[in-house]
Amino acid sequence: MFEAVELGLKVAKEEYDKKVPDLRIKLLHAQEQLKDRKFPVLVLIHGADGAGKGEVLNTLHEWMDPRFLQTTAFGPRSEEERARPEDWRYWQAMPPKGRTGIFFCSWYTRPILQRAYDEIKKRDLDREVERIRLLEKALTDDGVLLIKFWFHLSKKDQKKRLKELEEDPRTAWRVTKMDWKHYKLYDQFRAIDEEVLQETHTAEAPWIIVEAKDRRHQTLTVGKTILEMLTARLNQAPPPKVPAASAAGTPPDKGKKAVPGSRTQSVLDRLDLTKKLEDKEYKERLEEAQGRVNRLWRKAKPKGRSAVLVFEGWDAGGKGGTIRRLTSALDARDYRVIPIAAPTEEERAQHYLWRFWRHLPGRGRVVIFDRSWYGRVMVERVEGFARENEWKRAFSEINEFEEAMVRHGYIVLKFFLHISPEEQLRRFKEREKIAWKQFKITDEDWRNRNQWDAYEAAVNELVARTSTPHAPWTPVEAVDKNYARMKVLDTFAKAVKKAL
Amino acid sequence: MFEAVELGLKVAKEEYDKKVPDLRIKLLHAQEQLKDRKFPVLVLIHGADGAGKGEVLNTLHEWMDPRFLQTTAFGPRSEEERARPEDWRYWQAMPPKGRTGIFFCSWYTRPILQRAYDEIKKRDLDREVERIRLLEKALTDDGVLLIKFWFHLSKKDQKKRLKELEEDPRTAWRVTKMDWKHYKLYDQFRAIDEEVLQETHTAEAPWIIVEAKDRRHQTLTVGKTILEMLTARLNQAPPPKVPAASAAGTPPDKGKKAVPGSRTQSVLDRLDLTKKLEDKEYKERLEEAQGRVNRLWRKAKPKGRSAVLVFEGWDAGGKGGTIRRLTSALDARDYRVIPIAAPTEEERAQHYLWRFWRHLPGRGRVVIFDRSWYGRVMVERVEGFARENEWKRAFSEINEFEEAMVRHGYIVLKFFLHISPEEQLRRFKEREKIAWKQFKITDEDWRNRNQWDAYEAAVNELVARTSTPHAPWTPVEAVDKNYARMKVLDTFAKAVKKAL
Repeated sequence: MFEAVELGLKVAKEEYDKKVPDLRIKLLHAQEQLKDRKFPVLVLIHGADGAGKGEVLNTLHEWMDPRFLQTTAFGPRSEEERARPEDWRYWQAMPPKGRTGIFFCSWYTRPILQRAYDEIKKRDLDREVERIRLLEKALTDDGVLLIKFWFHLSKKDQKKRLKELEEDPRTAWRVTKMDWKHYKLYDQFRAIDEEVLQETHTAEAPWIIVEAKDRRHQTLTVGKTILEMLTARLNQAPPPKVPAASAAGTPPDKGKKAVPGSRTQSVLDRLDLTKKLEDKEYKERLEEAQGRVNRLWRKAKPKGRSAVLVFEGWDAGGKGGTIRRLTSALDARDYRVIPIAAPTEEERAQHYLWRFWRHLPGRGRVVIFDRSWYGRVMVERVEGFARENEWKRAFSEINEFEEAMVRHGYIVLKFFLHISPEEQLRRFKEREKIAWKQFKITDEDWRNRNQWDAYEAAVNELVARTSTPHAPWTPVEAVDKNYARMKVLDTFAKAVKKAL
Repeated sequence: MFEAVELGLKVAKEEYDKKVPDLRIKLLHAQEQLKDRKFPVLVLIHGADGAGKGEVLNTLHEWMDPRFLQTTAFGPRSEEERARPEDWRYWQAMPPKGRTGIFFCSWYTRPILQRAYDEIKKRDLDREVERIRLLEKALTDDGVLLIKFWFHLSKKDQKKRLKELEEDPRTAWRVTKMDWKHYKLYDQFRAIDEEVLQETHTAEAPWIIVEAKDRRHQTLTVGKTILEMLTARLNQAPPPKVPAASAAGTPPDKGKKAVPGSRTQSVLDRLDLTKKLEDKEYKERLEEAQGRVNRLWRKAKPKGRSAVLVFEGWDAGGKGGTIRRLTSALDARDYRVIPIAAPTEEERAQHYLWRFWRHLPGRGRVVIFDRSWYGRVMVERVEGFARENEWKRAFSEINEFEEAMVRHGYIVLKFFLHISPEEQLRRFKEREKIAWKQFKITDEDWRNRNQWDAYEAAVNELVARTSTPHAPWTPVEAVDKNYARMKVLDTFAKAVKKAL
């Protein structure tokens, strides 16, 4: 596919000077329109050494309004970055809606380099490519306009370019030993690049291969392509709004079972909610279990192990109390509880998974999510805050997200604290009676309760679809609080022990 | 001062059980009121080992609404944290307005430990204490309600507590070797703690010393103190709003010289705006200077040096073009340009310096602020967005902030690009003529121009007050763009060379 651009196209200085002013105006205008439209633009810049990536970047900063442009260049990973799944740093750098982000190198860089140096096998590369496709799909599905540039130089042209730069004493500093080392591997790189580009050239995220021989041709092509793709997207009708009826609280699938006929098969139904632990036994076992958890984590910590724990469950299911029994077994420096409430402005301007990515733990840390990304397929689904196509694709996005965590070495545990509607009613009434528990019970809780069936169907479906071998759900019988707390502590202890 | 609390006060179980429900209700109610009031609460928890810091923390999480509570426990600094000034991690963890943050250990921990182990001298500790006073003043001046708890145990009680925990097999894990090691240094610690506490016990941020012998007394005291201090603050009248006149654009000091009579002495006036560099010479020297900067930074990077560059100047002063000449000399992975526009929601909920702290560079990185914290004493002052007491105290806050950077080892450079009003007018008109420059000129620019004198007075004052030996201003004669760009490149190169 690279031959197709090895055409030696040139743009004369007069033509360039004539075209640039118009292009700049239109780019600025498009950026202006983008501000009010709710999607981000992400430009990836890749390509050969000496292909002028830095120069093009500088020109874009000159042409476009830098206040709405953010560039991130990715080099070797820092300790903080290495402590988290590889994609963490890319998520951290994502442009918010209405802005343009430029990634200088990206998720393509490491796999291609490793394959070229034969550090990974062909089948590893295939897996990486599949992972990248899923990541890009998650982004474009969410509305990101993804523009991927690959700057190409033929072997001859690359050599010529590097020589020219080197021979001029004023620009010699631009050429490094690494550039020449890569040049020697030109053929390997070319074959691998070509393969990766073909596999990741999708309708939603196509590659734009640009010949980098003539700087004016290259720069103009980049500017024009961004303008065209951005204008095309701006001219598309914005996606339809959520129907008012849903937003007002009439869920599209109220009362409907998500997995028809599976009622008797459902995970929640199979739980034995009569399970119980007497107070006396509980008290004895609790301190013991907390001690075990403490000792285990003190072993896991210096090994750099990290854990992500998700707590979901019915309102009044006992999440808070259970989390406190767990955290009191840990050193306060080692854990962080993230209560998930309404997203902030910065969070709303990003993909819904962004706000969870930002909290992933470093080495030796435990992050506990009190509610989580599963809100997408529960409350957002039932209340109609997410469109059907949005929550439906969330299942695979969530699985991919959790797989990235497990692949990185996190211990991932997901607890669903289950109680019966009768027990919930009892607890609601109790909360209304006890003054300092009243804040825990709101009109919203009563409204949610009225939709028990819709929520139950949603929960059954999400448990079925996201109980993966790498990150299974632990449904917790939570009518008896003692039993629920011990089950969570024991499950965590077992998982840490296994991971050591 | 510790003797004063060694009273052996106890709270009986019945009394405790009777008082807690009322306290919980009132705490929840106060938290509810806090949500609508624009200040954050920051609780520091310090004290002896075995004094039950963790237990109190857990109780607070049980009593208060955890959705509006965030706890951060500080242990040894991570690589990411060590790469930045020490206070960076505290700034990162600051609770936003309307929320309560609990710091488990804080800026007191390291200095006290180091002094107890004789790693620093008495005079070093004094300096640290002074630094802490300034930090706490900056926070409380901004409205933070700072509540500092110190849990105290007498030597005898501490020993008894550690023994008790150790003898019970279920709680033995709570006692570490470090706890005993610190116990052996009890007397040293006590003397140092006492001194530090006395020095940092201010009207705005007083210490609350709590005897930790009886858990119920301790917990109740903590809960009651938080409630009392929070209620007292909630009952205070909110600070007066900025007068409408100022907000509407009539600056309180319009046309007034900030440093009366100093007109002819002013830094800006002394600049020779006719300084010029011919195109031919500029072109030659530019590539050369860029090469020098590149080589220097390639040496500075592996040594872990970092730089913070601030660009301020008149509208149309040429900041963007100058920054681009500098960044094109650097590897795109090594720098980041932060254009300062209106703060986001998350940023508005914090101290005005918070949004700058969050962007401070890691090892080997250069962060370039296109406009900066000086907005506080320029646009916010002149336009009346900041109250007089706010921008006045900003001078020392800014000096302290920059000193923290320099102390950490950052190269800090501040450039003010100065042009004459006539040159600005010429550039404004030029921008209006060139289509792709029109976006750069707005009504606001014309409005600002009408207040040239007020801005000039503000600039002269800020340069005078914040040109410290550690972070001096570099005023740049910027009528001739060539000259300005070269001066900035040369200044940066010289500073990096000096730092190597």
